[in-house]
Amino acid sequence: MENSEIIELLSNYVPISDHLAQLITKYSQIKSIKKGALIVREGQITKECFFILKGCMKKYYLLDGEEKITKFFTEGETITPSSYTDQEPSKYYISTIEDTIVSYGDPDSEDEIYKDHPELESLTRKLGEIFMVKRDKEFDIRVNLSPEERYLHLQENRPDLMQRIPQYDIANYLGIRPESLSRIRKRLNK
Amino acid sequence: MENSEIIELLSNYVPISDHLAQLITKYSQIKSIKKGALIVREGQITKECFFILKGCMKKYYLLDGEEKITKFFTEGETITPSSYTDQEPSKYYISTIEDTIVSYGDPDSEDEIYKDHPELESLTRKLGEIFMVKRDKEFDIRVNLSPEERYLHLQENRPDLMQRIPQYDIANYLGIRPESLSRIRKRLNK
Repeated sequence: MENSEIIELLSNYVPISDHLAQLITKYSQIKSIKKGALIVREGQITKECFFILKGCMKKYYLLDGEEKITKFFTEGETITPSSYTDQEPSKYYISTIEDTIVSYGDPDSEDEIYKDHPELESLTRKLGEIFMVKRDKEFDIRVNLSPEERYLHLQENRPDLMQRIPQYDIANYLGIRPESLSRIRKRLNK
Repeated sequence: MENSEIIELLSNYVPISDHLAQLITKYSQIKSIKKGALIVREGQITKECFFILKGCMKKYYLLDGEEKITKFFTEGETITPSSYTDQEPSKYYISTIEDTIVSYGDPDSEDEIYKDHPELESLTRKLGEIFMVKRDKEFDIRVNLSPEERYLHLQENRPDLMQRIPQYDIANYLGIRPESLSRIRKRLNK
């Protein structure tokens, strides 16, 4: 089940040939992670990166003891912890907020596989560009929109997140106090 | 001059072997762009991406006729316009704010080169991961810090930007009114 899932998710971004699908199936390492597990901790150097097949994670900082969520990750999204590229201890946490299934890898074993199969590295390169552009859009939306507009944008573009993530986590992510989010929702429902 | 420059800039991120340096030199297309030129326009589909060898660009939106800057790009940074990956008209502008020298490419010719030289695609893949992590950090800084803290962070981490970019553009980028930025600077100088 997981292998057809990964091909289907990747096909949303780039065409996956049968040959590529076979390679992906051969080299994918897949694991399940229970809801509420910490994948990355502050201070930790993580060399694993992830591609979510099923489930949801959140990335957050503890600032003066308060959780500050800066990203949710769901099906078809990659997680590249900062310490994957810069070898410095993480400044943030990542935890699962649902039972989650991921494909995972680390730089050393990936370098080996890419040496033998440049097609796989090509896929990763293209996905990287697509996710980079998505990240840029998220930044710009954050900067350009008011809190209320951010809420509307999320509701329109990610109705799935609204369904599966607790309201206070959505408010936290949007940078809106829960009371204000309730007021916004009431106003919009009128 | 430009070819040694590009190797030096890339070496800041990943080790560049002599063989790789030769390939980069062979395939780099380099051009100069005058200060004040528009590289990407709203509504345009751009298939060119850039690596800055010298100079500075800004990315901005026109919102109700007002310029809103969301990013500066300087030496060693890549510019992947959104329409490079999603083929949709750009929602923003990118312009040079200094005379600029770039290495540039487009997806079709890059795919050709990568087919013959997987080492070059490997380099691009690694750079993509590094820039992705940098983008994530920029997002989190934006979300987690107050305007004054953002100003201090920029001053500490990018003193070069403070020198080369007009004060009102810095204020615009930080999301601070120019008068407020002057007040913050005065308070901090005391």
